Amino acid sequence: MSASNSIGIVSEQRMNFDTPLQFQSGAVLPRYELVYETYGTLNADKSNAILVCHALSGHHHVAGYYAEDEKNPKEKNIGWWDNMVGPGKPIDTNKFFVLGLNNLGGCNGSTGPSSINPATGQPFGASFPLVTVEDWVESQARLADRLGIKQFAAVLGGSLGGMQAMQWSLSFPERVRHVLAIATAPRLTTENIAFNDVARNAILTDPDFHGGNFYQHGVVPTRGLRLARMLGHITYLSDDAMAGKFGRGLRAGKYSYNYDIEFEIESYLRYQGDKFAAYFDANTYLLMTKALDYFDPASNFGGDLNQAFAAARANFLVVSFSTDWRFAPELSRTIVKSLLHNRRNVSYAEISSTHGHDSFLMQHEHYHKVMRAYLNNIASEFSA
Amino acid sequence: MSASNSIGIVSEQRMNFDTPLQFQSGAVLPRYELVYETYGTLNADKSNAILVCHALSGHHHVAGYYAEDEKNPKEKNIGWWDNMVGPGKPIDTNKFFVLGLNNLGGCNGSTGPSSINPATGQPFGASFPLVTVEDWVESQARLADRLGIKQFAAVLGGSLGGMQAMQWSLSFPERVRHVLAIATAPRLTTENIAFNDVARNAILTDPDFHGGNFYQHGVVPTRGLRLARMLGHITYLSDDAMAGKFGRGLRAGKYSYNYDIEFEIESYLRYQGDKFAAYFDANTYLLMTKALDYFDPASNFGGDLNQAFAAARANFLVVSFSTDWRFAPELSRTIVKSLLHNRRNVSYAEISSTHGHDSFLMQHEHYHKVMRAYLNNIASEFSA
Repeated sequence: MSASNSIGIVSEQRMNFDTPLQFQSGAVLPRYELVYETYGTLNADKSNAILVCHALSGHHHVAGYYAEDEKNPKEKNIGWWDNMVGPGKPIDTNKFFVLGLNNLGGCNGSTGPSSINPATGQPFGASFPLVTVEDWVESQARLADRLGIKQFAAVLGGSLGGMQAMQWSLSFPERVRHVLAIATAPRLTTENIAFNDVARNAILTDPDFHGGNFYQHGVVPTRGLRLARMLGHITYLSDDAMAGKFGRGLRAGKYSYNYDIEFEIESYLRYQGDKFAAYFDANTYLLMTKALDYFDPASNFGGDLNQAFAAARANFLVVSFSTDWRFAPELSRTIVKSLLHNRRNVSYAEISSTHGHDSFLMQHEHYHKVMRAYLNNIASEFSA
Repeated sequence: MSASNSIGIVSEQRMNFDTPLQFQSGAVLPRYELVYETYGTLNADKSNAILVCHALSGHHHVAGYYAEDEKNPKEKNIGWWDNMVGPGKPIDTNKFFVLGLNNLGGCNGSTGPSSINPATGQPFGASFPLVTVEDWVESQARLADRLGIKQFAAVLGGSLGGMQAMQWSLSFPERVRHVLAIATAPRLTTENIAFNDVARNAILTDPDFHGGNFYQHGVVPTRGLRLARMLGHITYLSDDAMAGKFGRGLRAGKYSYNYDIEFEIESYLRYQGDKFAAYFDANTYLLMTKALDYFDPASNFGGDLNQAFAAARANFLVVSFSTDWRFAPELSRTIVKSLLHNRRNVSYAEISSTHGHDSFLMQHEHYHKVMRAYLNNIASEFSA
């Protein structure tokens, strides 16, 4: 990740919402706060706004870094998609006004299970409602309203973020001109739900989870979160990428015949697991995986995705990655077919990449060229 | 699984060994017991013996059922490969003398971590040495010695069992005429090691594991075992098999927006996890996964599998299954190539099956035909 043409110093902003939000589940949140960041300048007719939706562990800090990190460049907290978003980058902040937010239910500043419930003075914990992709899109639309954005030039995201981007075209067909759905799926496969269920069970059965109200016990279900993240990492990578990076390499050069770390891959997974468990909220993790499982626009139409996409008015770029076995190209092709069935304008790029599902976050020449070209065309719509 | 032409009532047998066994790790087991079963009749020149090696959660009870189960046919404890082994079945007990044993370190009767260590009067627990495939083959050879079997007509197994079968051809080239290596690999991929590591960590970090000495605490690391088995089940099945069997089916017909079981696949996985955790020993699970990770005959020859197989004298049948992504056909082809390089007689069957890694345990017409044909040829060597 190069910060050479970074957007530079950014700062987070906050917006409070006092209008109750009714969730798909029926639950109502009387008020909530969203944390967000913006990069670039909203043009006069507010036609150059792009919404970046985040995936499972993402947040509002998409690009740039914070002022307080400038003194310590090594520890600089650079946004999670800084290689994609910035001046002169594929999502060019010289042209676009880019909005990133932390989704409702998150743990990076927006109201979520770890936030204090004003009604009780205690963290929401288990009482925080399960959120769906539809709910997020509703909350994002309200944020757009407050920012005066009537229509996005584009809504985009990878993985769970791509689901939100697609949902925008269904919930608010007139409010989004382009959807960029990257490394995503019209619904999870059974296998994906199964992996999510194992991850959830690791957290739910951790004795430190306390039914979701661990905050009051002064503990964190670290073991469960760690296992969930380790498992996640395996499925985000490709078999080949893992083999290429770690092979059967041994830390000590030989077998030690015990249960300590032996293989390099074990060291990597445990490090990633420990790192994640130290900062991510367990309830948010659970909630995010459920949102993934629930997303299934075709289910409102007897399983017919063609019918589901009939409401869409946007133009689409769909991108998949050859070695992504969690959100396989086959699933993206299903999206493309249904869009074509509905005579949508759709571009599809199947990118050859060895990095599995994680590819969507990575600096990859062909991928970035495709994104840049598509976004340049969008920019020409309003800058011409 | 049909018991219509079952071998019928079988009983387990036990053999005690007083000659210390030195493990690859350097550890020494002064004495141990192996539990085993035999089916069919050893012929006069003892040339019709087949050794069936078991995989991760297998054991000595390969076929038939026990006398005490006859009163309760519904609860009948039928052997794990009863569809393959029996009179008139592919491994025909009218022709062969079939030997199945519970591997050392197991939890079904052979000496393992849950056995009492005579030196302390307490279960071995964490003090039981880690066992390798080579160690198992050594212990199996000693059992063969005691049964008067100088040479096996065939040694065979699926998955981890296939690794043992291959190792027989390397450790005791003159003692095995045929190796049937099914749904196996010359060594685990990085991804496989990664999955094993997550499963192990689920057990190792379970507060009830107590460093492997949970027996003395009167508890069992059920949570960890359950997670390990749930994860295992996902990887034993194919994506398609799971989709076909469970799809996105919901138990209640609609989302319930909580963390109870919602999808059918969750119900299946949790049931399998609970069932397994109720009877399997956590230390044995750990040890078995380590044996899988360690197996890598090429590692003694700078990674050159051709050199590793130079010692082999047996004829080979290698079988793989099209949807087995954990032990993919590609890995079996690597074995075949190295055997051909060494001018071994090798037959290879890549079976089209939707059932993933689990295919090797299932009744599948083509697969069983291949096995039957190959084994009939073996039988003709001594019955002609």
